[in-house]
Amino acid sequence: MVSTLEKVKEAKAASYELGKSSTDLRNRSLDRVAEVLDERRAEILDANALDLNESKGMPKALVKRLELSDEKVDSMIEGIKSLVRQSDPVGETLYAMELDRDLEVYKVTVPIGVIGAIFEARPDALVQISCLCLKSGNAVVLKGGSEAKHTNRMLYALIKTVTEDEGLPDGWVQLVESRAEVGELLKLDDYIHLLIPRGSNEFVRFIKDNTRIPVLGHAAGVCHVFIDADADMEKAVSIAFDAKCQYPAVCNAVETLLVDKKIAKRFLPMIWERYAAAGVKGKGDEEAQKIVPELEKAAEGDWSTEYNDLAVNVKIVSGVKEATERINKYGSGHTDAIVTEDEQAGRYFIDTVDSSSVMWNASTRFADGFRYGLGAEVGISTGKIHARGPVGLEGLVTHKWILKGKGNVVGDYVKRKFTHRRLTKKWD
Amino acid sequence: MVSTLEKVKEAKAASYELGKSSTDLRNRSLDRVAEVLDERRAEILDANALDLNESKGMPKALVKRLELSDEKVDSMIEGIKSLVRQSDPVGETLYAMELDRDLEVYKVTVPIGVIGAIFEARPDALVQISCLCLKSGNAVVLKGGSEAKHTNRMLYALIKTVTEDEGLPDGWVQLVESRAEVGELLKLDDYIHLLIPRGSNEFVRFIKDNTRIPVLGHAAGVCHVFIDADADMEKAVSIAFDAKCQYPAVCNAVETLLVDKKIAKRFLPMIWERYAAAGVKGKGDEEAQKIVPELEKAAEGDWSTEYNDLAVNVKIVSGVKEATERINKYGSGHTDAIVTEDEQAGRYFIDTVDSSSVMWNASTRFADGFRYGLGAEVGISTGKIHARGPVGLEGLVTHKWILKGKGNVVGDYVKRKFTHRRLTKKWD
Repeated sequence: MVSTLEKVKEAKAASYELGKSSTDLRNRSLDRVAEVLDERRAEILDANALDLNESKGMPKALVKRLELSDEKVDSMIEGIKSLVRQSDPVGETLYAMELDRDLEVYKVTVPIGVIGAIFEARPDALVQISCLCLKSGNAVVLKGGSEAKHTNRMLYALIKTVTEDEGLPDGWVQLVESRAEVGELLKLDDYIHLLIPRGSNEFVRFIKDNTRIPVLGHAAGVCHVFIDADADMEKAVSIAFDAKCQYPAVCNAVETLLVDKKIAKRFLPMIWERYAAAGVKGKGDEEAQKIVPELEKAAEGDWSTEYNDLAVNVKIVSGVKEATERINKYGSGHTDAIVTEDEQAGRYFIDTVDSSSVMWNASTRFADGFRYGLGAEVGISTGKIHARGPVGLEGLVTHKWILKGKGNVVGDYVKRKFTHRRLTKKWD
Repeated sequence: MVSTLEKVKEAKAASYELGKSSTDLRNRSLDRVAEVLDERRAEILDANALDLNESKGMPKALVKRLELSDEKVDSMIEGIKSLVRQSDPVGETLYAMELDRDLEVYKVTVPIGVIGAIFEARPDALVQISCLCLKSGNAVVLKGGSEAKHTNRMLYALIKTVTEDEGLPDGWVQLVESRAEVGELLKLDDYIHLLIPRGSNEFVRFIKDNTRIPVLGHAAGVCHVFIDADADMEKAVSIAFDAKCQYPAVCNAVETLLVDKKIAKRFLPMIWERYAAAGVKGKGDEEAQKIVPELEKAAEGDWSTEYNDLAVNVKIVSGVKEATERINKYGSGHTDAIVTEDEQAGRYFIDTVDSSSVMWNASTRFADGFRYGLGAEVGISTGKIHARGPVGLEGLVTHKWILKGKGNVVGDYVKRKFTHRRLTKKWD
C-alpha cells in the first residue's frame, strides 16, 4: 500500500509540472471530466448505491448528502462547464514596474502548490474541489468521508484517468481514505500548502486545532441582523424572516436579532407572527420577553451559539453603538446586517462591524461566492489573512515576483537611482 | 502592573476606532511623530546611551544594531516622511459588482486589526513598525529586545503621546517588555491577527513554532544563482560576485552557486579570483573541487545552510533541469536567479523554481520592497498564503465585503436572476 507521505510527495512532484500547464490543457481536461461524468453516469450511480446500501442506520441528513441522483450529476457537470468558462486565475500580472531601463519586475499569479481537501460524506464535494484545483493549477490530496468510499473511489479514478490521459502530470490528484491518514495529512506542512475542510463546525474546528498548515474556512457562522430605530418596518420584517427561514441550516443564516428599544414594540410582534407561523423557536433577554412572551430566557452562551436551525435569539439594544459592540463580541466575524434608512447609522455599522461581510438593508443569506458574482466558490473564510468572506478561484493562487535584467547588480545602485516607472505591460 | 492580556485587549478595543480613522488623521499623526523625533533627538540619544552603557560584554554586531546616531534618527524621520507620501492602503475598492438594480457588493480594503511586532534589540525597528501599522490603520503591540529598554520606552512614550494628542484612540500602540510576556503574546490568537517578527532565523523559527497566530516573515534565505551553459560570462561573474559580496549578512545574498558542467571550467576560475580577493571561503562537490582546489568538501547539510557570511557552496550540475530540482529541494523559497542568454532555459527556470522571487540575469540582492518600488517594506515572506516575497503596506490590510441593498432578500432570487454587472465606481 502506498503511504500517505508517498501520495503527498507524488502530488508535490506533480505540482511543479501542473503549475506551468497551459490554460488550454487545464480547460480541455475539465471538459473531459464533464464528459466522462456524463458517459459513466450509470456506473457512478451504481457505486453510490453500494454506499447507500451500507448506510443503514446513519442519520437521514448524512444519507441525503451521500446520495447521488441524475440531478446531482447534472449539476456537477454544469458546475464544471461554468468553471471552464471562467478566466484563468493563473498567470495574471498584478504589478509591473520598471526599476531601470533594462530591469523590470513583475508580480504574477501562480498556483499555491498542493491543496489538502478534507470533507465529510459528500461525493459532489470531491468533484467540485478537484475541479477547482485543476482550474487553478494546484495538485490536490482528497480525503472524503469513508461512508462514501465506493462513490469516491469511482469518481477519483475517473478524474485521474481522463486528466492524465489528456496530458496532466501523473499523480496531480490523490485520494486518501482512512481516518488515520487524516492525522498524517495534518502533519505534512512541508508538502501541503493549504487545507480546505468542508463539513460541520466541529469538523472544521478539529482541523484548525490540529495542524500548522493554513486552513481556508470558517468554524462558525454566528450572524446578526440589527433593526435600527430608523428601519423601514417592511424591509426589517422581510430581511429578518429571509435571514432565518430561507435556509436555516447554513452558515449565513441569522442567529441573533438585535432590536433598537425605540422600535422593539412595533417590530417584534410583526416578525414574531411570521416566525411563529414558520415554526421558529426563540430565546431572548428580559426586555424582549416582555414583548414576546413565547421567548425563553437566553443564557450567556446562547449569544454565541450557531443553531443552524429554526431558532433565534432576540436582544433589545440601546442603539447602533451597542449593537456593533455586541456583534464584535459575540459574533464569529462571518456576516452581519443592519436595517436602517439612516445614512449615519448605516455607515457607522459598516465601518465598525469587524466581519467578513457587512450588509445594509439586505439579508445575510446573500453572503455567497455565486451571489457575489465570483463564479465558483472555494469557500467562505472568517480568517483575515489571505482570503476573507466568500472566496473564489483567487483564493487558490498566490504570486511570484519575476525580475528580468541584463546582468544588473545591486552594487551599481549605491550611486545610480532606480527609475521606478509603473508599466502597463504584462509578463508573458 | 498592567498585564499583557489587558494591554492586548486595550489594543484590540482601540483597533475598531483606528480602523475607521481618516487618511488625513493618520498622516498628520505620522508627521507629528517625525517632528517629535527631531525635537526630542537629544533625549532619545541620551536614553540610548543608557542602553549602550549597560551593553558591555555584548557581541559587537548586537551593540551596532542597538546604537542610535544622528544619522539613524535622520533616516527614521526620512522613512516616516516617505510613508506619509504613500497612498492610503485602507479604503481601496478591489471589486464592485451590481447583483441587481438596487443591490451592490463592494470588496474594500480594511486594516487587519491588531499586529504583534516582536523584534530584537533594534530601536529603529520599533519606530518603523509602529509607523507602518499607523499608516495602515492597525493597532500594534510592540515587544523589543530588553537590551534596548531605555531607548524603546522613550520612543514608545513619544509615539503614544503625540499620536493620541493628535486624536488617535488611546491604547492603539502598546509596549510589552519581559521575555515572559512574549510567551503570553504568542497565545493570544483571539486578539492578535498577525505577527511580524524581526530578527535572526532562529528567532523567527521560534516564533513560528510556538504560536497559532499567522506569522509574516521568513526563517531562512537559502538563495541560489545558477550559471547556465549559455550564460554571458561577464554578467555571470558580476552577478555571482554582487549576490555574495555586496552585503553578505542579509537574507537575499546567495549561498549556493550552481554551475552548468559545460562552462564550469571557464566560469569557476574567473569568479574564484574575485571571491578569493574578497575573502570568500567555499565548499563544493568533487567536480567543483577539481576546478577550484581551495574548496572544502561540502557535506549534505551545507546545501541548505544560510551562511550570512563570506562563504559559498559550489555545485556542478548537468543543466537547468537539475538546477531547478536542487533549488526546489534545498532552497528556502526566498530568491533564486539564473544567468543565461538562452530564452528557453530562462523561461524554464522562471516557471519551475517555486520561490517568492525568481531572477533572470539579475542579482538576488534586488529582492527588496524598496527596490521593487513598493515604497515601505513590511518584510519579506517565504510563505505562500496572504503575502509572498517583499511585502509592502498591502500586507497589513485585508478586506471586507459590503453589500448595500434596499431591503433585498434571497428568497426573491430563487426565481429572479442576478444581473452580475461589474461596476467601475468605488465604495465611499
